[in-house]
Amino acid sequence: MRVNPADDDRYMSLALRLAEKGRGTTSPNPMAGAVVVRRGRIVGRGFHLRPGLPHAEILALLEAGPLSEGADLYITLEPCCHTKKRTPPCVPAVLDSNLRRVIVATTDPNPLVDGKGVAALRRAGLPVTLGVKEREAQALNRTYSHWVTARRPYVILKAGMTLDGQIATSTGRSRWITGMPSRRDAHRLRTQVDAVLVGVGTVLKDDPSLIARTGPRLLAPADRQALRVVVDSTLRVPPGAHVLSEQETAKTLVATTTAASVSRRRALEQLGIEILILPSAEKQVSLPALLRALGHRGITSVLVEGGGEINASLLRGKLIDHVCLYVAPMLLGGADAMGLIGGRGPVRLASASGLRGMKIRSLGEDFLVEGDL
Amino acid sequence: MRVNPADDDRYMSLALRLAEKGRGTTSPNPMAGAVVVRRGRIVGRGFHLRPGLPHAEILALLEAGPLSEGADLYITLEPCCHTKKRTPPCVPAVLDSNLRRVIVATTDPNPLVDGKGVAALRRAGLPVTLGVKEREAQALNRTYSHWVTARRPYVILKAGMTLDGQIATSTGRSRWITGMPSRRDAHRLRTQVDAVLVGVGTVLKDDPSLIARTGPRLLAPADRQALRVVVDSTLRVPPGAHVLSEQETAKTLVATTTAASVSRRRALEQLGIEILILPSAEKQVSLPALLRALGHRGITSVLVEGGGEINASLLRGKLIDHVCLYVAPMLLGGADAMGLIGGRGPVRLASASGLRGMKIRSLGEDFLVEGDL
Ligand SMILES: NC(=O)c1ccc[n+]([C@@H]2O[C@H](COP(=O)([O-])OP(=O)(O)OC[C@H]3O[C@@H](n4cnc5c(N)ncnc54)[C@H](OP(=O)(O)O)[C@@H]3O)[C@@H](O)[C@H]2O)c1
Ligand SMILES: NC(=O)c1ccc[n+]([C@@H]2O[C@H](COP(=O)([O-])OP(=O)(O)OC[C@H]3O[C@@H](n4cnc5c(N)ncnc54)[C@H](OP(=O)(O)O)[C@@H]3O)[C@@H](O)[C@H]2O)c1
Repeated sequence: MRVNPADDDRYMSLALRLAEKGRGTTSPNPMAGAVVVRRGRIVGRGFHLRPGLPHAEILALLEAGPLSEGADLYITLEPCCHTKKRTPPCVPAVLDSNLRRVIVATTDPNPLVDGKGVAALRRAGLPVTLGVKEREAQALNRTYSHWVTARRPYVILKAGMTLDGQIATSTGRSRWITGMPSRRDAHRLRTQVDAVLVGVGTVLKDDPSLIARTGPRLLAPADRQALRVVVDSTLRVPPGAHVLSEQETAKTLVATTTAASVSRRRALEQLGIEILILPSAEKQVSLPALLRALGHRGITSVLVEGGGEINASLLRGKLIDHVCLYVAPMLLGGADAMGLIGGRGPVRLASASGLRGMKIRSLGEDFLVEGDL
Repeated sequence: MRVNPADDDRYMSLALRLAEKGRGTTSPNPMAGAVVVRRGRIVGRGFHLRPGLPHAEILALLEAGPLSEGADLYITLEPCCHTKKRTPPCVPAVLDSNLRRVIVATTDPNPLVDGKGVAALRRAGLPVTLGVKEREAQALNRTYSHWVTARRPYVILKAGMTLDGQIATSTGRSRWITGMPSRRDAHRLRTQVDAVLVGVGTVLKDDPSLIARTGPRLLAPADRQALRVVVDSTLRVPPGAHVLSEQETAKTLVATTTAASVSRRRALEQLGIEILILPSAEKQVSLPALLRALGHRGITSVLVEGGGEINASLLRGKLIDHVCLYVAPMLLGGADAMGLIGGRGPVRLASASGLRGMKIRSLGEDFLVEGDL
């Protein structure tokens, strides 16, 4: 069998680009792309778009039809072999296609799969090359991997702040710290996550809608609208808050505790709002419990949009996985201003949370700092 | 007369590089460089090193000797024509050299000169080309220009901070937020300014020496040591503070008010420390008065090294010209931590201070953000 590693890289890159088209809609499934190549010609292409729709390799093999005989199948993620889900497992379909070889970028971190798909193909005598563009394929599904192994969503902290780390003035004004390009980019982030989360303090002070927009008055498509989550121990959220409106566009879930009155709960439920009663920690919603509950219902990623108190609780609980900070070229100042991270800070510098893989790029007048925690 | 603009640019760039050699020692004079070119050959070179030593053009003409006849003189700054200073004016010496032409990058912003040098040469019939590499030459003497026109030093705010804008934990710990490369760069800054300034709060909490070092135990040369300035309304600075030691290496000036007791003043004066009594504003040292006094004694630039309260007063007074922020990849958090700018912040976002010309570069694990206010 002639195998050219440069060809393998090239076809796998194409499969990865196809996979990318599912960003924002495959959740809680991973993104995946597939290409069928017969004698140097691409005869099939596929990517996973949405749970319930066929997986990438099935679509690629369908397009190839009888041409899959003797062909090579490139897939960014090993085929599934488990049956605890809506779509049938892919391994039998791959085996039925008379392929010459299967090239897999990476195994599926889902404990139900985790190499079993590749093993099943090999057991059936089909040659498998594993690990082509592995790093890229793993990075693509970072969110999914996190969710499927840690059993809680990947948490991204996002904020617009001044160079001196303030997200609002002492009286809570925060509109607008950053420029249009930053705000547009932040809306793009919303379309890529399963949920957007704020503390009730932000609802009371800023009254944001948390709806993703692609332009001044343009909504992002409904299937790109994240679940809106408000953390509110005693249901202080006013029934007229923007975050509760437009339920037909994006649903809202209010996470609370038993300290919330039944009447307030009723009032919100009548608006079609889901109320989730969670354990409390120091009289506030337990954030680990909230993230577990969100993970359980298939939320693989959460974009935290402040404010300072929620950010502080998440940081202290080591619940933040990634930060996206839009930094505006201005100094605000004031010991009384609202910092990115409120609450009580650590006494020792050694207890600060270090960022790994920090990257900076400019965005209009602002710059975006990203990193992993 | 054959004149090639590309040659003019090239020789002026060389003159600018020569001028740069005086950085940190010419103050309160501007940096200046000069090149004498005769028939495409460089026959003289000079730069200003230190007040009292000859100016750049004099040294270049000295080196050229009789070869200056019919030659071109490139100077980064117009020659001086006033006599209120230690060295004789340069215009007569330039006129006596039988030059063919003089090429000048920029005029001297000093109101005593301000084009008069160029005018004098032209009046005497010597052709002058003005404005070659003007922008670069003006940038080179930004500090001097500021001092000579505003009559107060150019103020640079420097700090090492976390990504969320904190310069110390709630208990005042700040060692070390940034890494070695940042701290080394900050020491380099100290060698380029005339004074380094802190509030007494920083002296009491960190006890810094403010001496410029070029290595772990290596001092920067004595002529590169900036005057150390402590802002201390009631002379709380302890006589044993590091900032008061090593007077043979760098002098210390304590700026205070009449609220300081005579006995404390005596104690410090006995250590050889200069005490400057200034007007007060809200019971604290008036910072505009301090900067005016420093400017008056020939201090053209001040590096402010915190802490949060001094930074806040300077920002509020619009007294900061430039910022150099060394940002470490960590989140500290805490509404009780010490932010870059303390005090009372503005209520409205529109009152935040915008940065112009922001530049970012990485420095080890950290990054350095610079900009003009
Ligand atoms: N620039 C930006 O990107 C940006 C983004 C967002 C917000 N902001 C600014 O941030 C400010 C609001 O911040 P904030 O700190 O007041 O409000 P917040 O962090 O949005 O909400 C804090 C509130 O959430 C509730 N909560 C429930 N469980 C919690 C837990 N485990 N940990 C922490 N909080 C919990 C608490 O109220 P209960 O105890 O009543 O539940 C708490 O007071 C506004 O001024 C806004 O402008 C800026
Ligand atoms: N990371 C860094 O780069 C860095 C650098 C420096 C400091 N720090 C940290 O900053 C903290 C110290 O900051 P700080 O805010 O307490 O002290 P500070 O700003 O250094 O000094 C403040 C004191 O200066 C005196 N002062 C006199 N005139 C003033 C005026 N016009 N405006 C403001 N202050 C005036 C006041 O005391 P009187 O009224 O008694 O005169 C005031 O309390 C320490 O924790 C230190 O670790 C960090």
